[in-house]
Amino acid sequence: MSEINIDFGREKRLGFPEIIYGAQKSIEQLESILDHYRNRKMNALITKLQAEKARVLLGRFPEGIYDPQAQTYIILYERAAARHGVVGVISGGTADAPIVREAANTLAFLGYEPLCYYDIGVAGLHRLQAKLPELDTCDVLIVVAGFEGALPSVVGGLLSQPIIAVPTSVGYGVAEGGKTALHAMLSSCANGILVMNIDNGCGAALAAVRIMRRTNA
Amino acid sequence: MSEINIDFGREKRLGFPEIIYGAQKSIEQLESILDHYRNRKMNALITKLQAEKARVLLGRFPEGIYDPQAQTYIILYERAAARHGVVGVISGGTADAPIVREAANTLAFLGYEPLCYYDIGVAGLHRLQAKLPELDTCDVLIVVAGFEGALPSVVGGLLSQPIIAVPTSVGYGVAEGGKTALHAMLSSCANGILVMNIDNGCGAALAAVRIMRRTNA
Amino acid sequence: MSEINIDFGREKRLGFPEIIYGAQKSIEQLESILDHYRNRKMNALITKLQAEKARVLLGRFPEGIYDPQAQTYIILYERAAARHGVVGVISGGTADAPIVREAANTLAFLGYEPLCYYDIGVAGLHRLQAKLPELDTCDVLIVVAGFEGALPSVVGGLLSQPIIAVPTSVGYGVAEGGKTALHAMLSSCANGILVMNIDNGCGAALAAVRIMRRTNA
Amino acid sequence: MSEINIDFGREKRLGFPEIIYGAQKSIEQLESILDHYRNRKMNALITKLQAEKARVLLGRFPEGIYDPQAQTYIILYERAAARHGVVGVISGGTADAPIVREAANTLAFLGYEPLCYYDIGVAGLHRLQAKLPELDTCDVLIVVAGFEGALPSVVGGLLSQPIIAVPTSVGYGVAEGGKTALHAMLSSCANGILVMNIDNGCGAALAAVRIMRRTNA
Amino acid sequence: MSEINIDFGREKRLGFPEIIYGAQKSIEQLESILDHYRNRKMNALITKLQAEKARVLLGRFPEGIYDPQAQTYIILYERAAARHGVVGVISGGTADAPIVREAANTLAFLGYEPLCYYDIGVAGLHRLQAKLPELDTCDVLIVVAGFEGALPSVVGGLLSQPIIAVPTSVGYGVAEGGKTALHAMLSSCANGILVMNIDNGCGAALAAVRIMRRTNA
Amino acid sequence: MSEINIDFGREKRLGFPEIIYGAQKSIEQLESILDHYRNRKMNALITKLQAEKARVLLGRFPEGIYDPQAQTYIILYERAAARHGVVGVISGGTADAPIVREAANTLAFLGYEPLCYYDIGVAGLHRLQAKLPELDTCDVLIVVAGFEGALPSVVGGLLSQPIIAVPTSVGYGVAEGGKTALHAMLSSCANGILVMNIDNGCGAALAAVRIMRRTNA
Amino acid sequence: MSEINIDFGREKRLGFPEIIYGAQKSIEQLESILDHYRNRKMNALITKLQAEKARVLLGRFPEGIYDPQAQTYIILYERAAARHGVVGVISGGTADAPIVREAANTLAFLGYEPLCYYDIGVAGLHRLQAKLPELDTCDVLIVVAGFEGALPSVVGGLLSQPIIAVPTSVGYGVAEGGKTALHAMLSSCANGILVMNIDNGCGAALAAVRIMRRTNA
Amino acid sequence: MSEINIDFGREKRLGFPEIIYGAQKSIEQLESILDHYRNRKMNALITKLQAEKARVLLGRFPEGIYDPQAQTYIILYERAAARHGVVGVISGGTADAPIVREAANTLAFLGYEPLCYYDIGVAGLHRLQAKLPELDTCDVLIVVAGFEGALPSVVGGLLSQPIIAVPTSVGYGVAEGGKTALHAMLSSCANGILVMNIDNGCGAALAAVRIMRRTNA
Repeated sequence: MSEINIDFGREKRLGFPEIIYGAQKSIEQLESILDHYRNRKMNALITKLQAEKARVLLGRFPEGIYDPQAQTYIILYERAAARHGVVGVISGGTADAPIVREAANTLAFLGYEPLCYYDIGVAGLHRLQAKLPELDTCDVLIVVAGFEGALPSVVGGLLSQPIIAVPTSVGYGVAEGGKTALHAMLSSCANGILVMNIDNGCGAALAAVRIMRRTNA
Repeated sequence: MSEINIDFGREKRLGFPEIIYGAQKSIEQLESILDHYRNRKMNALITKLQAEKARVLLGRFPEGIYDPQAQTYIILYERAAARHGVVGVISGGTADAPIVREAANTLAFLGYEPLCYYDIGVAGLHRLQAKLPELDTCDVLIVVAGFEGALPSVVGGLLSQPIIAVPTSVGYGVAEGGKTALHAMLSSCANGILVMNIDNGCGAALAAVRIMRRTNA
Repeated sequence: MSEINIDFGREKRLGFPEIIYGAQKSIEQLESILDHYRNRKMNALITKLQAEKARVLLGRFPEGIYDPQAQTYIILYERAAARHGVVGVISGGTADAPIVREAANTLAFLGYEPLCYYDIGVAGLHRLQAKLPELDTCDVLIVVAGFEGALPSVVGGLLSQPIIAVPTSVGYGVAEGGKTALHAMLSSCANGILVMNIDNGCGAALAAVRIMRRTNA
Repeated sequence: MSEINIDFGREKRLGFPEIIYGAQKSIEQLESILDHYRNRKMNALITKLQAEKARVLLGRFPEGIYDPQAQTYIILYERAAARHGVVGVISGGTADAPIVREAANTLAFLGYEPLCYYDIGVAGLHRLQAKLPELDTCDVLIVVAGFEGALPSVVGGLLSQPIIAVPTSVGYGVAEGGKTALHAMLSSCANGILVMNIDNGCGAALAAVRIMRRTNA
Repeated sequence: MSEINIDFGREKRLGFPEIIYGAQKSIEQLESILDHYRNRKMNALITKLQAEKARVLLGRFPEGIYDPQAQTYIILYERAAARHGVVGVISGGTADAPIVREAANTLAFLGYEPLCYYDIGVAGLHRLQAKLPELDTCDVLIVVAGFEGALPSVVGGLLSQPIIAVPTSVGYGVAEGGKTALHAMLSSCANGILVMNIDNGCGAALAAVRIMRRTNA
Repeated sequence: MSEINIDFGREKRLGFPEIIYGAQKSIEQLESILDHYRNRKMNALITKLQAEKARVLLGRFPEGIYDPQAQTYIILYERAAARHGVVGVISGGTADAPIVREAANTLAFLGYEPLCYYDIGVAGLHRLQAKLPELDTCDVLIVVAGFEGALPSVVGGLLSQPIIAVPTSVGYGVAEGGKTALHAMLSSCANGILVMNIDNGCGAALAAVRIMRRTNA
Repeated sequence: MSEINIDFGREKRLGFPEIIYGAQKSIEQLESILDHYRNRKMNALITKLQAEKARVLLGRFPEGIYDPQAQTYIILYERAAARHGVVGVISGGTADAPIVREAANTLAFLGYEPLCYYDIGVAGLHRLQAKLPELDTCDVLIVVAGFEGALPSVVGGLLSQPIIAVPTSVGYGVAEGGKTALHAMLSSCANGILVMNIDNGCGAALAAVRIMRRTNA
Repeated sequence: MSEINIDFGREKRLGFPEIIYGAQKSIEQLESILDHYRNRKMNALITKLQAEKARVLLGRFPEGIYDPQAQTYIILYERAAARHGVVGVISGGTADAPIVREAANTLAFLGYEPLCYYDIGVAGLHRLQAKLPELDTCDVLIVVAGFEGALPSVVGGLLSQPIIAVPTSVGYGVAEGGKTALHAMLSSCANGILVMNIDNGCGAALAAVRIMRRTNA
């Protein structure tokens, strides 16, 4: 029996198609999945795709674009219709950039134009404070941080938007792997902070889309 | 110096006042805080308040109402203005009821009317399926579950709303304390599920408010 | 003294021979073990065998067949007698395929014909529901899932067979390594779900054999 | 809306009714649930019920029987039909008796007659060896152990039946809470050992029922 | 042999006497220790002393003063000489007050006059910012916080003093017990933050004393 | 079937009788066990026995002696023959005394006379150094410590005896429960340190007996 | 938007510039950051820089010096002014040398001259005792240790200086990764020990600088 | 200052020289250490030495012998005097052989002749039972096991010798890394089992030497 069983009804049910998690699928599985998408001329987004696997896929599906930093592989058979709604994506440090980009690429894939603000973490608060007026115009804020993951707490105390916190696996020692940032975000003393799995930039973008479709319907 | 330093500007900044976490504050601290609120005739919500401490507070602040199951203590000096936006609060099992009620009481405190659906967990899927049309009318869904915390994954695959998953400390053995449900919700294969800390019904309600204020502004 | 001490009485005692765990044995140890099996013309199954070690073994024991996805290496000196009893092996996602195949190969090694159903996880429930009539004809169900491991709970609420849940190490962030799926399966609100170690597809097959020998004796 | 939503179709679907988890439900919730069962004259089993709550329930539902060691509360409006199939329930130590009894009471509730063998752990192997012939007549073995949880490995190497291992929270230091026994059972070098959550005697019994209904249909 | 073996040379070696950890000593042990101190007319500080044990000790050593919030018990046979050096003790929330007071009482016991600033956590940053000029006059800052423990990161980015971070066991869910705050403080992106064990207000005070003795010698 | 199945051959096989773990056995179970010992006039040692249960047992078995600090309950129908071999039992702090006494009582129960040295931990090294000549005359050293568990490393670098390290659950914050001391002892940079479970003073004594029987046979 | 947002005001606020964490930044990010520093002729310190990335940077910024053991990369456009204050850096074992050097290089980068004492761990106490007089002349002590991390406890009981403990990831088994050493240092029975994240030699140096600037101002 | 500070007095104090832990030392450090040993013509044992580093050392110190399975590197300038005392080293599975050999090589290095019994784990008990008479002649037993680590419990119930249990990192899923085996051994229901860190075969040998020197002095 085939190892592939794509949920092509997902876009109709949920408003976005099935996203393909690339990290632990084999080349053969990914090729077989992309064949199904190509046959239907359906846009495809693969996340967490390692560079060596991307190289092989680009050989067979040269219509795709691979972002080596974000580890996303996107094939657009048809450009997504532009959507209303602005997501601000903020990161604590430069090293969080891959996850910022994963979120931003996912939003772009679905027709949204994100605003990205890198490296405005709590160790130098003035950097965040300088951006507050711009951030306040966003519909949703995605806040990406590694190490101690304090940025969502500070942002959540200053701005009233829905805030989606994404811990990253950036850090070492007890921070390594992102659990410290995750637990800090879940424990935030700022109220109503929403949290995603470690390094789940794509999921944060999809959650933002769930919110914006309601907001801007 | 006083041990109390209330952030009275929070309502203006964020759209909801400072909520009082009751579990680890002393009676003397809570009384002093409530005096500040009473002086300003500001509505107060205490969460995670143990029954024995509630009894003492009710003696001094009989204008409050204590819900022993939800462990919330609410003083309304002025009824909150009714707000638009409907939150559906769903629970996997009967034992999750305290957290459902914490979320519902928080929403009511802020002027929203939640719809609660108890005990419609995945071990008997037909119970959930029977409620899908009603749930689809909600603006935001709060999904509360203990044990293996599978309910948000199933709901997230069927409905397109923003979904806020709240793990509870209901369960025993490896489920005890709620970490299994928390990690399962963070790892959900359903896309765009937002997660709160264990037993944080109040935070889920405030996150829903952040979303609805944007949606229904 | 020899580092090898094979339990050749196991088949008589338990109904299946000693299975060889390959991951942490050296090439020299594996060759020495296979020599013992070859001398007795006894069928051999090595599990968790890395590709580079398989290449070496195939040089010396070309009568074996290596499945690189399942990481099983099987030598059949005599084809196993066909056995009664049907095991359905279900997986939540495509990335779980290696463990599905490990279970299936083990069953085939012992004379059973498994039915495999890939990629029918809870994020798109209709895929599972479409297979329920077929699944209901099985004697035992092996349910393989990574990430939040919710599939056994849903299956366990719908079908009455013995259900053996196998968590996989598929996922990232807090799911990485399979502990979240394992703990979710152990905490299942569905009753009577049996659980194996992470990625233990072979063990699930052997447990199914223990059950079917009683059932179909 | 009611906090209770009983799955009365479960017996038809799965062969056993919904079991009531008592530990984290309130008296009011349990009374309301038992009212529903009484109205339908349906047999009820509550597990993990604390003594103080049992005392209150016995006042309102004196037709029930509470086993304080097993913490089970059973109401039989109609005696369960006797079923074929024998389960042997073995324990490593005397302190594991509550979980042995939870399993045995669940089996009796459903019409099975279990055989219980207490205190035959691996520190004095002759005790187990003396029981092997009796144990070999059973259809399924439930093996209950705390501390290092070694008993299922030894039993699994000697007997060919389906073996359901139940770790208990008996022990102290690193054994406290049962995680060491759980992980040891999951890691067993004996093949095909099935594992339940810590202290889940009831679940082990239901899993055995799933097996025996197939075996003895 | 006696169970008590006091290190009376510690004050000479380190500049402060042996502090008595009260939580896990028996009444008999504590009485015997205080007898030794009384005989030498040496000032004594017991930390983490439960209220019920304090009551008994006050009967035999009425010269002591018990602070039930800080759980410190102090006997001053001779008032400590006033020392130079100012420690600012800051807390994120009101519920952290016991640990603030443990630190402050320890400092006072040794002749220092601490400045305490309660409840100026990151969810309302203006409260901290209002105190910056005062805090900048301190020689050492002790920063006490529970939940996500973000306050030291923010303080450490704004002020140049030695900063001693003390996580508290205030919080629930994944914050419970203080490990999240501890790990967040250890992972701080602010440079040069020093960290103590959870709830170790006394140790923070002694570390500050080690610093100030050098600074103000 | 009886819940009790005593291994009366253990003394002959191993040189010491079955020790009774009291913490998680019921009064009824303990009484039944002690009846078996009394009938055979066999000496009995119960460990980890809570005070309230000891009170009941003393009513029925007044020939026993309960040590409330060590939580041991000992019945000597016949005084143990005096044995050769001296065990030094050392503790880091006064609060470790219960475990020192559990070890010492176990040794005395079996006919050995231990030497106990309390409160000679590493924070005041001279206390240990003063005892080195006495300690060097012992056959085996049991080193008991909580908190960071550093004492065995220091002793192991100075003395050549077999060293049995016993971590205790004394401490708070990350030390709470004894895991930090346990892991520190297992990781000791001093060579050849043997480690027991947390708070297992009795096991340390029995291990010492295994050693001394060989040494002094 | 640029991924780089350097906090050039940090030196003025805190007394030391922004240190660049190299481990999880890309070559492109690091080059871009160093361009900013070069443009301002500002000294730069990169920590945790892997050798392969250092090689590339040395090509473009040959004015830097890479220490492969410490994994630091330092560019001095202007030699730091010599500062008063002596830090003793002590290590338990030879394998801790990389972290000793990271601390020492950071101190040198900022104008301090550290004294380093390698391999004087607790398994051979005389090595430490021989250095006590020299160590007593230091203003601050940084104590670096892996395995069980006992050295800070012993040093803290003998010397009165501020002591900054740095656990390292040196060790195997339960010591692997450094958590055992970290937790042991946090739980130290010696009073007033300050602790850094695992392997954070640079942070320890910066904390020492915070102390010395106050001490030697 | 030199990074090397060898404790040459250790042999005199403890009866065995300083053993060199090779895993996390650099080639330069190891060469420098071996130079010191060569200069004194002192026998050297390096443990946990990776193959690539051994190759380099063999170039400069060809008098050494490297065992790639055990990862030990031994230089004997003088053959160790033969010692009395027999250690039996037992392993549960073939994959544990590296740790058996590490223990055996350490014993041989110090003049003892170990007896090794591989692959006699609990899944086929008869293999152990066949060796009991031989094992009973040993002075000390070292029992090495991975996976669930049950072997020491069974051995400890049958034989009266001092038993040193060594968990190995053999296994997968929850067994991976050896923590399950470690915790199972610490929790053993067999009395008086002594435990070492994961994979610490060398330490087990040195502990055995501490015992045998007393026994056979």
